[in-house]
Amino acid sequence: MDHHTAYHDLIDGFKNVRLLESIGALVGWDQHTYMPVKGAGHRAEQMGYLAKLGHEKLTAPAIGQLLGELERAAATDEIERVNVREIRRVYNRAVKMPSKLVEEIARTVSQAQNIWAEARKKNDFPSFAPWLDKIVTLKREEATAVGYKDSPYDALLDEYEPGATTAEITRVFAELRADLIPLVAAIAASGKKPRKDILTREFAVDRQHMFGQAAAAAIGFDFQAGRLDTTVHPFCSGIGPGDCRLTTRYHPRELNQGLFGILHEAGHGIYEQGLDTTHFGTPAGSFASLGIHESQSRLWENQVGRGRPFWEHFLPRLQQTFPGTLDEITIDEFIFAANNVEKSFIRVEADEATYNMHIILRFELEQALMCGDLKPSDVPGAWNEKFHHMLDLTPPNDAQGCLQDIHWSMGGLGYFPTYTLGNLYAAQFMQQARQDLGDLDGDFRAGQFGRLKGWLNDKIHRPGQRYRAGELCRRVTGQALSHKPLIAYLRQKYGPLYGI
Amino acid sequence: MDHHTAYHDLIDGFKNVRLLESIGALVGWDQHTYMPVKGAGHRAEQMGYLAKLGHEKLTAPAIGQLLGELERAAATDEIERVNVREIRRVYNRAVKMPSKLVEEIARTVSQAQNIWAEARKKNDFPSFAPWLDKIVTLKREEATAVGYKDSPYDALLDEYEPGATTAEITRVFAELRADLIPLVAAIAASGKKPRKDILTREFAVDRQHMFGQAAAAAIGFDFQAGRLDTTVHPFCSGIGPGDCRLTTRYHPRELNQGLFGILHEAGHGIYEQGLDTTHFGTPAGSFASLGIHESQSRLWENQVGRGRPFWEHFLPRLQQTFPGTLDEITIDEFIFAANNVEKSFIRVEADEATYNMHIILRFELEQALMCGDLKPSDVPGAWNEKFHHMLDLTPPNDAQGCLQDIHWSMGGLGYFPTYTLGNLYAAQFMQQARQDLGDLDGDFRAGQFGRLKGWLNDKIHRPGQRYRAGELCRRVTGQALSHKPLIAYLRQKYGPLYGI
Repeated sequence: MDHHTAYHDLIDGFKNVRLLESIGALVGWDQHTYMPVKGAGHRAEQMGYLAKLGHEKLTAPAIGQLLGELERAAATDEIERVNVREIRRVYNRAVKMPSKLVEEIARTVSQAQNIWAEARKKNDFPSFAPWLDKIVTLKREEATAVGYKDSPYDALLDEYEPGATTAEITRVFAELRADLIPLVAAIAASGKKPRKDILTREFAVDRQHMFGQAAAAAIGFDFQAGRLDTTVHPFCSGIGPGDCRLTTRYHPRELNQGLFGILHEAGHGIYEQGLDTTHFGTPAGSFASLGIHESQSRLWENQVGRGRPFWEHFLPRLQQTFPGTLDEITIDEFIFAANNVEKSFIRVEADEATYNMHIILRFELEQALMCGDLKPSDVPGAWNEKFHHMLDLTPPNDAQGCLQDIHWSMGGLGYFPTYTLGNLYAAQFMQQARQDLGDLDGDFRAGQFGRLKGWLNDKIHRPGQRYRAGELCRRVTGQALSHKPLIAYLRQKYGPLYGI
Repeated sequence: MDHHTAYHDLIDGFKNVRLLESIGALVGWDQHTYMPVKGAGHRAEQMGYLAKLGHEKLTAPAIGQLLGELERAAATDEIERVNVREIRRVYNRAVKMPSKLVEEIARTVSQAQNIWAEARKKNDFPSFAPWLDKIVTLKREEATAVGYKDSPYDALLDEYEPGATTAEITRVFAELRADLIPLVAAIAASGKKPRKDILTREFAVDRQHMFGQAAAAAIGFDFQAGRLDTTVHPFCSGIGPGDCRLTTRYHPRELNQGLFGILHEAGHGIYEQGLDTTHFGTPAGSFASLGIHESQSRLWENQVGRGRPFWEHFLPRLQQTFPGTLDEITIDEFIFAANNVEKSFIRVEADEATYNMHIILRFELEQALMCGDLKPSDVPGAWNEKFHHMLDLTPPNDAQGCLQDIHWSMGGLGYFPTYTLGNLYAAQFMQQARQDLGDLDGDFRAGQFGRLKGWLNDKIHRPGQRYRAGELCRRVTGQALSHKPLIAYLRQKYGPLYGI
């Protein structure tokens, strides 16, 4: 077989794997938005079978043979080099996973997500405990199967953040934590607090939806190629070219949740919509890592969406959307309320500073679960103890504690650290964008987000998986990932607000 | 391999085919409800690949070998006999279909449905014409591939109505037509007409949805195991155990459309929900034929839902749902309006008598398309000419003529006749149910539908594919399918209304 044919056969085979995954993404989206409750059992069968088929197609001997053949002669084409390199990575991981394990994980987590949703609603950890136990067991089997050098946690991490290691993340998180603790303490000591009543007034859900959708469209999410629906645990799912699904949840007395949640998911969506569709289904047309993905959501949610210039444009529009509700609120009061720093229970509602403490807690607990130092049934106690130690608070119940997140029920151990990586990358990218593009704040004040979006499309989105996350960061910003841009950004933001 | 193992291997293999189909059903449902417009191209890729995979799994040599082995020793178990017989039928059809043709049809019709929806909206047949041409060509290839004795149309029919033939349907339709024409003429000659303003008042869509959902639940559709959404061309899709999706469309000034549409789809849904879930994925747990499926929708929509006893219960509730809108309307006026017989353009809005003329027209045009006597580009002219001949009307445009139905864009040639078969079976089953159960009208007046639903569950739903449609009819009613129960029912209904 000639080189050209071999490459095309490899791409065809791999695209089919991604096509099955895109079908799974849609089926999963439906599970979290519109599926009737009694459909859960059958849904688990569907998800399990799709996962099994995808794994079969990915690990077909032909894929291995084609990879070997293509690797023997170095490609001259950059796209081909990237695709062969990244398909090799995915293939190597997959062939180590027994097909039965893949299917069992998929079927288990499909069911477990429904069990978790019920358990969270009823604040009933014991009903979820056996499922968590099963999932941890399966994930340990997965780590053993794929192999690792230092920690079984590395094996999980590598799926979401290729090339990242527990040791490296531990180091950067420790540096971040060392700077965060005094910052959060100084804020608390300042005695200043925003008015809390501003974002907790009566905000009709349908109007929140309208406003959120308009804001997402304004920053650049294309609703002809996507949707916004409601769910229990918000997510963004890129189904494929022209089809990206945002989800959110609304609280009629908490504007924060829906509004910033939508900007966050829209950031993910803009990344998905910015991928190079001519390479759909291949690494060159796929997102770089979950950390980079999260950098895009954080950038729009926080760096842009919680900034004063953004609200100089949007506050009058928000006031018009809820007539009589926020009429007397000044931009200063609103910005302060939207940037309230306060230790709290729920990760997704946490401010930009304390948020990372929530992640560090999960990162540590997950490692303990994977090493066997922590039994799944002991999670609530361990959670509450660590929470008290790190955030000086004790969760009133498990729904606001260890049951708050969907991730473990999805089998997503190793996923959480990518959130703080996302915060770090977001700050570092935004610092660079401001250097490259000049007066971005002027754009935002005028409701213009196209220059920033265009820069992100060029620098971050269209490269796909050409570079791993760390290298992408170096190429875009000229520096390795560092906690400094995030700390600098937070100090600059909170300095004037809290007079510190 | 022993017999027991062979049977279980066959069932496992076949269930996987059905699992892929159930995934395709969900993906198709999404296409018609929530998919963003720009997702159409990728959706076609997903549907094409699912169809290809399903075809591969179904035609795997192992399935043929297992069938052969099982057929050599006659099974003692009835379920096994049914499953082997029906899997053989599906298998034989599938192995004759080239894999490329299967995939091409799936991909073509996924795209064509979007083209059709646009063409219908814009009344633009020429934009749809090349797609119809392609579909007819593909369906002729399909007929040639699967083979037939008398007419290529038989080959298509057999997919939807196993065992039925063009000749047989032509005969029963001719008998029906012979009795329908004088009935419709007598109604027209009576000079009597219901008040037309009753069902065309202002009916807020959200309240139509509320009422329709409540009515569907009242007749027995389980909303914990199903949903109701809006779409362009209403359908019901049974995804699998615990998950059945109804769709409808609403018009703010036409109560008929949403209301009876929902009862219709709920009838399909009650059938899907009544299948034996222990046999899901096998013929014993599948619906018997599309004609039988349609009998269940027609039975609830028309035989029950347009009857006076039903409205004695529901009219006061409808009046409460739309306060001030129908307050002065009597039950007699309402029933007459809901049973207005009048020649009209749109099949799905046609009354129970003229409806069948719409089907006969399509049945004849489809045969002409399949035999090559009619070119796809000539469809509008042929449609309008035949329409004028049969219904004395000329459609004002193609949107109200040959573009009105989704079926051809779905590749569903051969599907339409099952609608009139459904009307015929519905009348024959209902006649029997009334004999078996006594005072059903008393039940309906009291808002009780459980006895009828239970009877249908027992007699029609739970048998699955144990019997082909014709045999099921003989077993349930003691008679072969006949046009007489439908004609008797129509005469009995329209006699008092029109004084004929």
